[in-house]
Amino acid sequence: MSAYAELKARKETIYRLEHLQSIVTWDRMVNMPPGSAKARAAAQGEFEALVQRMQTDPALDDLLAKAEDETLASADAANLVLMRRERLTASAVPEDLLRRRTNAIGAASQAWAKARSANDWDMFAEALAPLLACVRERAERLGDALELSPYDALLDEFDRGLTLEQVKALFAPVTDWLPGLIDSAIAKQANEQIIEPQGPFPIEAQRQVGIAVMTLLGFDFEVGRLDVSAHPFTGGTSEDVRITTRYREDEFFQSLLGIIHETGHARYQAGLPPIWRGQPLGVACSMSMHEGQSLSFEKQLALSPTFASTLSPLLAETFGPQPAFDPANLFKLMTRVRRGKIRVDADEVTYPAHVLLRSEIEPALIAGEIRVGDIPAWWDERMGRLLDVDTRGDFAGGPLQDIHWSQGMFGYFPSYLIGAMIAAQLNAAYRAATPDHEARETSGDFSGYPVWLDRNIWSAGAQHTTGELVVRATGKPLSADALKAHFERRYL
Amino acid sequence: MSAYAELKARKETIYRLEHLQSIVTWDRMVNMPPGSAKARAAAQGEFEALVQRMQTDPALDDLLAKAEDETLASADAANLVLMRRERLTASAVPEDLLRRRTNAIGAASQAWAKARSANDWDMFAEALAPLLACVRERAERLGDALELSPYDALLDEFDRGLTLEQVKALFAPVTDWLPGLIDSAIAKQANEQIIEPQGPFPIEAQRQVGIAVMTLLGFDFEVGRLDVSAHPFTGGTSEDVRITTRYREDEFFQSLLGIIHETGHARYQAGLPPIWRGQPLGVACSMSMHEGQSLSFEKQLALSPTFASTLSPLLAETFGPQPAFDPANLFKLMTRVRRGKIRVDADEVTYPAHVLLRSEIEPALIAGEIRVGDIPAWWDERMGRLLDVDTRGDFAGGPLQDIHWSQGMFGYFPSYLIGAMIAAQLNAAYRAATPDHEARETSGDFSGYPVWLDRNIWSAGAQHTTGELVVRATGKPLSADALKAHFERRYL
Repeated sequence: MSAYAELKARKETIYRLEHLQSIVTWDRMVNMPPGSAKARAAAQGEFEALVQRMQTDPALDDLLAKAEDETLASADAANLVLMRRERLTASAVPEDLLRRRTNAIGAASQAWAKARSANDWDMFAEALAPLLACVRERAERLGDALELSPYDALLDEFDRGLTLEQVKALFAPVTDWLPGLIDSAIAKQANEQIIEPQGPFPIEAQRQVGIAVMTLLGFDFEVGRLDVSAHPFTGGTSEDVRITTRYREDEFFQSLLGIIHETGHARYQAGLPPIWRGQPLGVACSMSMHEGQSLSFEKQLALSPTFASTLSPLLAETFGPQPAFDPANLFKLMTRVRRGKIRVDADEVTYPAHVLLRSEIEPALIAGEIRVGDIPAWWDERMGRLLDVDTRGDFAGGPLQDIHWSQGMFGYFPSYLIGAMIAAQLNAAYRAATPDHEARETSGDFSGYPVWLDRNIWSAGAQHTTGELVVRATGKPLSADALKAHFERRYL
Repeated sequence: MSAYAELKARKETIYRLEHLQSIVTWDRMVNMPPGSAKARAAAQGEFEALVQRMQTDPALDDLLAKAEDETLASADAANLVLMRRERLTASAVPEDLLRRRTNAIGAASQAWAKARSANDWDMFAEALAPLLACVRERAERLGDALELSPYDALLDEFDRGLTLEQVKALFAPVTDWLPGLIDSAIAKQANEQIIEPQGPFPIEAQRQVGIAVMTLLGFDFEVGRLDVSAHPFTGGTSEDVRITTRYREDEFFQSLLGIIHETGHARYQAGLPPIWRGQPLGVACSMSMHEGQSLSFEKQLALSPTFASTLSPLLAETFGPQPAFDPANLFKLMTRVRRGKIRVDADEVTYPAHVLLRSEIEPALIAGEIRVGDIPAWWDERMGRLLDVDTRGDFAGGPLQDIHWSQGMFGYFPSYLIGAMIAAQLNAAYRAATPDHEARETSGDFSGYPVWLDRNIWSAGAQHTTGELVVRATGKPLSADALKAHFERRYL
């Protein structure tokens, strides 16, 4: 066996083993009885350590060096480059630092949950500061290995090759046009008549609607499931992809749109190239691209008049007819623009503001330009400027609302807005290439866009960076232009 | 670290890792979408190979030898003896033979499913013969390592130290008294008036009854679950024990009694000694003892007038009142004796006949005294003699009804009847030691027997063999006497 073949085989073994970890993690969120948490944590920790040992086996260095002398097809050579990168980053961070970071995350998680209930920023800040120190130290080590600045090294983890400079260039125009666009959209909707749906909406009926919509969007229940968990997510594996939602009886949109969002993630996951399964080339291009797929489904496809027309009879059939299910009314309900403090509750127009402010705070924190104690003031200033919302003194509705930082997760927030840009730009390219798309959607056929995404995005795996893949798929470099055009078309 | 401590730590690691395998296996039976079977099999196979390598690590030989020179507490010494036994059996069978056996099982499983539908014995026999050859070869190797006859080596896998001689001694009296006892029981019931319950019984309501009964029997939902699968089983781990059932709307007894049966297995599993978790001493004493616990719950506890009295209002409340739910009628319904061809449908009185005949065929097959082709004739003769049932020509209702042999599982059948004997003998000892047991059960308190089982059986783990543990718990050697007394008391 060549050294490269041996490396590939080792990756495949790890992929198979991680299948178990994926299912067990899903089980933990969906099924696990509460008293079993300790034994489960021990089991999953043991497994993680085992896989970690396989991933950091010193024999890999020799195999990589030998493989780099072998003659390889170009895709294999690209796969090998990614293997080398994984090795670089895996060996860049000493175990002691990882352990300290894990402990700091444990403390920050606990503090975050308590601080959020108590609306007490200082309580969280005290636990975040030592975690941030670990995050910064780790970012420096990764940056040294990859020849990147510390924050760029963090961005790189979620979106290979992405830099703060690129993020700034992408986000700067949005910062300019967003506040005005929000004003105009809200003004335009001010006098709209909207009929509110009347609940209750029984959970089993909601589940049936969810399954019908997933089926419409091409989710394959032969290799996937829909379940319930406290926090919706897409889990499992490409061969058994499992999405979750949560229901409340008085409202169905949140769950339904959440299901559509996760269906986008799930179809991307299931659509990754099977011949590269388990290899670095076979994974998703980036988290931005992942978000680009979920938002393609949720915002581009579902928040449309044609989708509202398709949804209308389904809702009437399932819940019984009511005036709120009129297609035009459904579309209005799904596209209401409202200023608010909470990111996850935001509509698509105000959402970018929430990302912009976090994306300014994060690099400043990592660069040491501001400290944890400065976050609330930065937050309040930007929420006022970008969104005209007053968050002073409301930490739970401010910087304590997200779980990310308490998990040591810095560098992820930009992907939410980059994902929205990607979704808008991909959808515009799809529409331009598919003159009959509206006619097909009007007749209830929403398969065109997923097929286009499969061909242009999913099947490429991680062959290209986000930027390269967007150019290949749309003919243009990634920018906020399509998102702006999308907002103007839908809201102005 | 001492060599023994190292051996213990290795066992604990494997135990933790197998937690994942247990949950994933449960998931496969309960949740897995059908199209994911291939990827799942690859993942679980990879994991099994990994654990197999850990269990057969050549370094174990050295560690065992060193540990055997260390000074150990007596329980640890007993644990070490069991480790040595595991090592002996694990290294007794060459990998090539295991592979051949796995392939033969694959072929026999497929043939079995087809042959059963087609009622075609020869179709199955053709696939069973090569599998039997592998089973016999493996039994010989195991027997050589353990200084046992081949069939005793197979018995030993499910019940350490059990021999064919012991099985024969235990079963011979039953063969004598059973046919007459069945006659008498059926004759006594011949003129009974029984009211049949009127369905349908909605599945969600059945589930609620199941959960109420599990709670009554001390099942801890903080560390366990009830779900649905095609074939009911007890899975998961001691810290997260999961039972399954299947429902049909026209009938509720089968599911309910199945739930009670699995609750017995589950409580044993959850009640094993935590300080020996993952060690050879910490597992169940034997499969007979496991069956002894499930039958303690299902037959000894649940098929009683006091349990019927407790069940009666619960059923009336859940399904609405009906005459069939009268306690005396419920007891009659649960204890009807009827001759039949199918083991898993048999009542407790005719059930032993099904085991007796299989327990005569198996050792003859392994010893080479009969061939696969002889099975139907042996079957028909014994079903006629023991149960007065004619199975000639009905292979699906005869030797094709059980899955066991198609899985290469020989030596397991005796544990079903030994389990019934154990259950009767344990329950008799409990009753003798607990004068107020009937008063407590009449008041709806069924906790006494499980507490007694926990103290006398579950907490002992695998410290003793089945025979030793029965003597310790009941003061008498295991025999069929208590089972006979139980049948006479309940049915004559």
